[in-house]
Amino acid sequence: MNRGLLLVVSGPSGTGKGTVCRALLEKRPDIHLSVSATTRKPRPGEIDGVSYYFMEEEAFRSMINSDGFIEWACFCQNYYGTPKEKVEEQLAAGRDVILEIEVQGAMQVKSEFPEAVFIFVVPPSLEELEKRLSGRGTEKPEVIHERLKTALWEYSNMEKYNYILLNDEVDKAVERFISIIEAEKQRVERNDDWVNKVKERI
Amino acid sequence: MNRGLLLVVSGPSGTGKGTVCRALLEKRPDIHLSVSATTRKPRPGEIDGVSYYFMEEEAFRSMINSDGFIEWACFCQNYYGTPKEKVEEQLAAGRDVILEIEVQGAMQVKSEFPEAVFIFVVPPSLEELEKRLSGRGTEKPEVIHERLKTALWEYSNMEKYNYILLNDEVDKAVERFISIIEAEKQRVERNDDWVNKVKERI
Repeated sequence: MNRGLLLVVSGPSGTGKGTVCRALLEKRPDIHLSVSATTRKPRPGEIDGVSYYFMEEEAFRSMINSDGFIEWACFCQNYYGTPKEKVEEQLAAGRDVILEIEVQGAMQVKSEFPEAVFIFVVPPSLEELEKRLSGRGTEKPEVIHERLKTALWEYSNMEKYNYILLNDEVDKAVERFISIIEAEKQRVERNDDWVNKVKERI
Repeated sequence: MNRGLLLVVSGPSGTGKGTVCRALLEKRPDIHLSVSATTRKPRPGEIDGVSYYFMEEEAFRSMINSDGFIEWACFCQNYYGTPKEKVEEQLAAGRDVILEIEVQGAMQVKSEFPEAVFIFVVPPSLEELEKRLSGRGTEKPEVIHERLKTALWEYSNMEKYNYILLNDEVDKAVERFISIIEAEKQRVERNDDWVNKVKERI
């Protein structure tokens, strides 16, 4: 059996990458969405093991030391990370796995899983992003400006990804996402079995 | 407008690559199938400009000298080649173009169009290929053996392609082909416009 694909999805906040991933999973329940671990406290309505794996700081740190994370980071004094074991299990079982993570985290994944597929979600335009960022609530212009600056930093890393997934409409974005998955499964480097079978015959 | 994709399709004879390409074009009439030029005489039923562009040897040679072919070769004392002008025109107009050509020709295309997408069509198994090759008519075992040897040589070049397209059923193969096209359009290196737009803003 072929190993599953590791699909790393990033993109500035406001691009709707979470919406695209959820819509994809509805259409393709065979795909596994990795749940992150965090040391921050659960918010009302968040479920352990679904929203996040909620962990104590000591446990998180000891998991860092035992190389239990594919990637991890500290934001606002809380740890966030992608537990390795579950992802490895799913991939070995031939299931495709999605990591919806920040750009910094994605770059860590790249060094450990160079065969992963890196997808960067973008809105129809930078102007649209500005609109989406400001349309989220009643934030002050400074906050919006700050977010846009972060978004531009994230964009500047876009070239390290394999695909740019345009999210103009969710349904279309899901179709494009599925194309990427189907095409990647056909890449020569993922089909060693064929190449090797031929070599045996020559 | 984005340039069209140059899709180079090869595969041993007997893999049904021609059938897959024709079925794809029925579903996607926006794609242009490049017509090869040849100096061999037309067979009954072949139409100039559809089956091939039939040319005199002198004209063919002078087109070689004026760099008019993307690739060309000589088989059984006849010249075959892919005229460059038409392909360039279509790509510039944003249309995707298919070249259904031999492995040798494909490697020539690679040096001139490194951004082309290389697709190698395979049957479900080598045993199936053997069956398809022998099932074509009433050929002698030696002829079949010779063809299989050629096929194995072609297979040994498979790693230079980007994708292995399995032709188990034509409809499924067409779907997979479309996934490859859609995914390739989303590759970062084909979306400079986004990357550049961001760079202007930073």
